[in-house]
Amino acid sequence: MSSESQEPPLSSEAQSKKAAKKEAAKQEKLRRKQELAAATAAASNLSVEDDPLAVNYGFVPLIEIQSKTPVDVNEWTRVEALDDSVANKPVKIRGRAQTIRPVGKKMAFLVIRENGFTVQCLVQAQPEAVSPQMVKFAAALSRESIVDVEGVISIPAAPIKGATQQVEIQVSKLYCVSKAVPTLPINLEDAARSEVEIEKAIQAGEQLVRVNQDTRLNFRVLDLRTPANQGIFRIQSQVGNAFRQFLLAESFVEIHTPKLIAGSSEGGAAVFRLDYKGQPACLAQSPQLHKQMSICADFGRVFEIGPVFRAEDSFTHRHLCEFTGLDVEMEIKKHYFEVMDVVDRLFVTLFDSLNTNCKKDLEAVANQYPFEPLKYLRNTLRLTYEEGIQMLKEVGVEIEPFGDLNTEAERKLGQLVLEKYGTEFYILHRYPLAVRPFYTMPCYDNSNYSNSFDVFIRGEEIISGAQRVHVPEFLEQRAQACGIEVKTISTYIDSFRYGAPPHGGFGVGLERVVMLFCGLNNIRKTSLYPRDPLRIAP
Amino acid sequence: MSSESQEPPLSSEAQSKKAAKKEAAKQEKLRRKQELAAATAAASNLSVEDDPLAVNYGFVPLIEIQSKTPVDVNEWTRVEALDDSVANKPVKIRGRAQTIRPVGKKMAFLVIRENGFTVQCLVQAQPEAVSPQMVKFAAALSRESIVDVEGVISIPAAPIKGATQQVEIQVSKLYCVSKAVPTLPINLEDAARSEVEIEKAIQAGEQLVRVNQDTRLNFRVLDLRTPANQGIFRIQSQVGNAFRQFLLAESFVEIHTPKLIAGSSEGGAAVFRLDYKGQPACLAQSPQLHKQMSICADFGRVFEIGPVFRAEDSFTHRHLCEFTGLDVEMEIKKHYFEVMDVVDRLFVTLFDSLNTNCKKDLEAVANQYPFEPLKYLRNTLRLTYEEGIQMLKEVGVEIEPFGDLNTEAERKLGQLVLEKYGTEFYILHRYPLAVRPFYTMPCYDNSNYSNSFDVFIRGEEIISGAQRVHVPEFLEQRAQACGIEVKTISTYIDSFRYGAPPHGGFGVGLERVVMLFCGLNNIRKTSLYPRDPLRIAP
Repeated sequence: MSSESQEPPLSSEAQSKKAAKKEAAKQEKLRRKQELAAATAAASNLSVEDDPLAVNYGFVPLIEIQSKTPVDVNEWTRVEALDDSVANKPVKIRGRAQTIRPVGKKMAFLVIRENGFTVQCLVQAQPEAVSPQMVKFAAALSRESIVDVEGVISIPAAPIKGATQQVEIQVSKLYCVSKAVPTLPINLEDAARSEVEIEKAIQAGEQLVRVNQDTRLNFRVLDLRTPANQGIFRIQSQVGNAFRQFLLAESFVEIHTPKLIAGSSEGGAAVFRLDYKGQPACLAQSPQLHKQMSICADFGRVFEIGPVFRAEDSFTHRHLCEFTGLDVEMEIKKHYFEVMDVVDRLFVTLFDSLNTNCKKDLEAVANQYPFEPLKYLRNTLRLTYEEGIQMLKEVGVEIEPFGDLNTEAERKLGQLVLEKYGTEFYILHRYPLAVRPFYTMPCYDNSNYSNSFDVFIRGEEIISGAQRVHVPEFLEQRAQACGIEVKTISTYIDSFRYGAPPHGGFGVGLERVVMLFCGLNNIRKTSLYPRDPLRIAP
Repeated sequence: MSSESQEPPLSSEAQSKKAAKKEAAKQEKLRRKQELAAATAAASNLSVEDDPLAVNYGFVPLIEIQSKTPVDVNEWTRVEALDDSVANKPVKIRGRAQTIRPVGKKMAFLVIRENGFTVQCLVQAQPEAVSPQMVKFAAALSRESIVDVEGVISIPAAPIKGATQQVEIQVSKLYCVSKAVPTLPINLEDAARSEVEIEKAIQAGEQLVRVNQDTRLNFRVLDLRTPANQGIFRIQSQVGNAFRQFLLAESFVEIHTPKLIAGSSEGGAAVFRLDYKGQPACLAQSPQLHKQMSICADFGRVFEIGPVFRAEDSFTHRHLCEFTGLDVEMEIKKHYFEVMDVVDRLFVTLFDSLNTNCKKDLEAVANQYPFEPLKYLRNTLRLTYEEGIQMLKEVGVEIEPFGDLNTEAERKLGQLVLEKYGTEFYILHRYPLAVRPFYTMPCYDNSNYSNSFDVFIRGEEIISGAQRVHVPEFLEQRAQACGIEVKTISTYIDSFRYGAPPHGGFGVGLERVVMLFCGLNNIRKTSLYPRDPLRIAP
């Protein structure tokens, strides 16, 4: 557009063409003005026809955002980038009208939010520029509407409280791109409030709205807009990224195994059943069998990130019917410690990466849900199950030696470990065989124990792993002993008949990692659209 | 272990302790020898008791690989690393016995494979070192068994044909870690053979085994071990990685949306139905609705990599009932070209990355399934649907102006585009509205067309994308017009009532990208464990 000055002198024919083009552009501008006015009149009570400055504001007609004109997206400045460096410069931003505060009839303040960053905008009536109707239009905007704002950046003398950016926009144009309903089912201010604030208010005799979990999940699209939720899912994205980058750098191959399988994936727990073209099928409870088969297929080291399905009737704070599994499987030379070594380095790297790359997101979460940063060691602590139950015994908690730890015992042990070793992240290994799946390798010296481990964050289990049985005859024997009909898993067992490398692996729940790293109290907070026994929407 | 020399002088007590320790180690060694002999005798017809050198070979007893002793994994050298630099040095490797060739009774050649790399090993009878029984043991190994080989590297005078590494191991120890069944259902040599070789043999009057697709899939764990298949799934892993890295670098957030949903995800095509705790539910046919909702939830730009489910009865070379979707959704300022710009840069970057980082894998695929490298432009060609059908018309192919292209027409157009523009990768946009889903934004100037696009590789569609309708009232109207009951998608439509940014996105099939980039003829080749209307195993 600014290249005109570089053009060669024009012939008279070209000149008349240019004039025609100019005229056409003028006509087009007029038409758009009329469309804008019509859209605004239709969508509001404003009689924009009386306002000679009506072109500076209004509801953008759909046709304008229906891919009519390609635009340079750089015309818009990101709210995040609004600072001293653009002082006195004109800018154009797009964001949500987070708050709207009219001051008399000649002035209105807007706070516009984009990607968690907010800026204060002042719409002030001025002759030849901003009409009183435009102020009225601004004041009447519904919260959470999407708007385009144009204006000049000024630097206010006093610091701005209600916005992240320390500049103000003196608004000259204001267009509503998408209108929110006037009354929202959740007020974002309420949804973003911490328990601490609510308690403080109660003590001061005030009452603030507390948005409960179910309401949040019913209107998840609104709930997710709070700074804490924006942070949580950006952290979740970074967990996945750090997990993958670490493994790819260590020669792991990312695989995608089928979720639709014949028979039940691991036996035992409840599965979702369905009809697959006339054949009985179910949804995979984990990629366990297929990731092991991929090791038998020579991929050496594999991982998968994907949904896993559990039809269990668990109503706890840490169970979901569908969650994202981070699964790893690898050849080992001789020992399940080789798997634990990967867990150790992987998670220390992951935690470091979150602390380094997600500072702002962690802060946003902590503002609403206060938590202490996770304490972890450079070399992850490893305790045997026997050592673990001994520690519990010493404080009077008796555990069945070949049973499992219940949630309460796990929490208690986490507390003892923190006191003794100063870490909230540790590995407990050599679990009793009886509490592990059939494919777990028993210990060489005592078949009451197994070459397996669990990993804990803040006293809650997030990882389960083990060496697997790679000898088909022994695997059959173990399946039978665990009450599994061998013929239902014959393709799986057969995979080990063509030479099977010793191997092991582990599975992690993505939502649990995020929940426990951030010390949150409910896994529904870290699942974008959670599924539990009572919820399958939105 | 080698730190002994650094220890301080020992007291006499310590000395006697050390002697006891030495004796214990000696006893342990003897015990292991006996165990090894017993395991070998049990697993073979060899009477190892007569052989004073029996400790140098045999079947490793399970107990040894049951995490008895932690090992330094660096004791093993990777086959890939075996070259001149280790000449005359002792090495230990683990891999599969790919081929076993006895030469008389005193010599046997093994080719050991690890991760696609192979090395020749010579087991030759020698007094005091390698017994004739050991040669017999080597000769009797079943193909595809996992073995540990120890020996010294020599550099042969003549190049080695049947192996990737140009060195030979003079074997001193040979242990079988995992035994394959003597007769494999698929011979790996057969599975790795190209059609060209088979044709050549036929012309020479020979007949070579051709392993058909179904047999391959039935014994997928063996089939996947071929160099081409190893290459295909390493390329697939890299596609996912390049896709994600590009998007993360452009501020996209990775999300995980539920696969279990109430109602049918997009209406229309067949879905897998199931019972969800007493509620009717189905498997998501795409993350379409939830990724759009995530845009309404202020994530700005999102992507997802996950399974999608289609219960269609398609028996073509390019349809699966479950595949991996690469899904993208993003806010736009005004135009669907903003989405196409991302597609353009993303895929050019992706193709570049495959050509740079997957050279060996692409070569492995091409060796069995010859193909020409994909031709693509630095700036992806964009044609409108109208232009496309005009090109077809000019060569006598008539297309319904507001209909869709069938597979044949797509192929033909791909050919015409290649001839005219020299590219096998291009975008066709502004499709007829009638052939697109209800949530597609119609064109501003002609509602017979839509702000949508498909992307083609080698004449086949791999991507579908569009601007979406973000106005709830209009979305209801479009859903109704497409015969969808609005109340079944009410949570989805409601998401747009709280202010919805204009947005668009696209979906890609991972398996299709790999299939078409490598010019393969069947999508079952690029799905690890494919699911089609007749196949739900392994």
